[in-house]
Order: sequence, then C-alpha cells, then structure tokens
Amino acid sequence: METTKTNTTVITSEELRAHWQGHRGLTRKLIEAFPEQEFFDYSIGGMRPFADMVQELLAIAVPGLREIVYGKTEELHEHLEHGKQKAVILKLWDEATVQIDELWTKISLERFHEDILAFGQYEGSVWSTIFYFIDNEIHHRGQAYVYLRSLGIEPPFFWER
Amino acid sequence: METTKTNTTVITSEELRAHWQGHRGLTRKLIEAFPEQEFFDYSIGGMRPFADMVQELLAIAVPGLREIVYGKTEELHEHLEHGKQKAVILKLWDEATVQIDELWTKISLERFHEDILAFGQYEGSVWSTIFYFIDNEIHHRGQAYVYLRSLGIEPPFFWER
Repeated sequence: METTKTNTTVITSEELRAHWQGHRGLTRKLIEAFPEQEFFDYSIGGMRPFADMVQELLAIAVPGLREIVYGKTEELHEHLEHGKQKAVILKLWDEATVQIDELWTKISLERFHEDILAFGQYEGSVWSTIFYFIDNEIHHRGQAYVYLRSLGIEPPFFWER
Repeated sequence: METTKTNTTVITSEELRAHWQGHRGLTRKLIEAFPEQEFFDYSIGGMRPFADMVQELLAIAVPGLREIVYGKTEELHEHLEHGKQKAVILKLWDEATVQIDELWTKISLERFHEDILAFGQYEGSVWSTIFYFIDNEIHHRGQAYVYLRSLGIEPPFFWER
C-alpha cells in the first residue's frame, strides 16, 4: 500500500476526471461485450436497447462539458449516424474520451460550485451536473448488465476499470 | 437560481454525504415499488433478486463507514433475518440512514485521501472506497429498474432524489 497522502479535500479535479474515465472504460467494455445486433435491438420490458442509452451518454458527455467550459447552451443530439455498426459507436466513444480530457483541463477549481443550467434546462452546480453525467452512465450500464446476463453473456466485472 | 458560491473544492464532505443519501432515498423508493414476493424472488438471467442486492448494500454502507471511522476490520454480512418481509428491510434501511449521518460527522476532511483496506481486502483511499459504495448502489439499482420494467411496473424517475 502507498503511504498516506496529505490532502484536505474530498476528491481533486484530476481524481474525478480519472474516476469518470475509469467508468467510461468499463462502459466501453460493455459495448464490446454485446453482439452487434443485440447492441442495437435487444431490450427488456420496453426499455431502450443499450445502443440508444450509449448514444444518450455520448450526447451528454462532451457537449455537457463543452457547455460548462464555454457557457454556450448545447442541445442533446441522441441520434447518431451509426449504420448499426458498433465500430462507429466505439470510434465516437474513443474520440469523446480524448475530448473529455481536453475540456477537463479548462474547468478551474473555482467553477465546480458555480450554478449552471445544463442543456438550457437542468439546474445544478458544475459538480452536481458532472456527478449526474457519471451516475447516469453507471445507471444505464447497470441495465446493460441485465441485458447481457439475459442473453447468456458474462459481463466484465464491475470493479474492473 | 442561487447566486454563485465561492468554494475552491470539487465537492465538500457534506455535499458528498447528501449526494449519497439522495441516492439512498431513491433506492428506498425502488424497494417500495417492488411487489413483496418479486422483491425477494424475481430475477433475470440468473442474477440475484433485488432483495439480495439490497442486503449487500446494507452490508456495505454502515459497516464500511464504521471501519473507516474506527479502523477495525469489518465483515460483510449479506444475509439478514428478514422473513421475506419488505418492512424489515425498509426498517433496516432507515436505521442505516441515521447511522450513516452519525458516522459521517466523524470522518475528518484530512482522512479522505488516507489509504485503507476496506473489509480487510479492498485497497483504496477513503474517498475511492466511499465512491465505490455509492457507484455500486447506483449499479445494482439500475438493474432493479430492468426488473421492475419487465414486471410491467413503472419505476420512480432516476433524477428524483
């Protein structure tokens, strides 16, 4: 174990970025674990296929951060041109990974407690908005675990980031 | 909207406590939304019924925080005497809510970056361990959303805390 660090904050900005990217890495593994067709079509109980949830996550992450950084209201674009190909989604996912890291460096520490209106309609602070992005991803990915299990596919471990 | 607050930290300890308790309030609503029998027995794809996941959450939250506060290794007790009654689980849930608030006041800010071994086996910092508790709850609750939907029951909104 490492020696104890001295730090009088709950979590640093860099730790939160890495925490989110760790979750995003796991979500990427879930996308990979789905068979191509089931990724786009399979659902339970009238819920959305995982591909639709992933498009929501893509619609939120980079545009949401861009709005936080530049202050210009963004729109939610949840319908991408994917041609039912996982490779297209995975490419967009990886591009978002790079963009998140770039945008993150532009959020100064003082801004996390600033009040904002995400996507022109969701009230919160910068921190609560970013936590919502992460929590929403965990929530939908948890649903994808059930989809995979019901398809007889062993999902990646939750704690593997 | 409130005026912008001055605060040079990502999230305060009190905000993290309230954030978790907000999630716990939503999880409580999910427990309430399940029919009694399905809460204990219903599953998809060989996964655990939601009652078993909730017992895991109860086994983690208070003992996990107690271990952080007092430094004495805790064991995971995931099998409670519930007699297949949701009321017993809900009572334990509400008792845990109070205990979490009490234990939380004993975690000083300097401790969040201390390295610990949760339940004698999981390496991490205090912050990453607490984030794991919260993320794990969101993950399993997301699965319970699928259970409810597949039972034809409308779950509470994810953003209602």
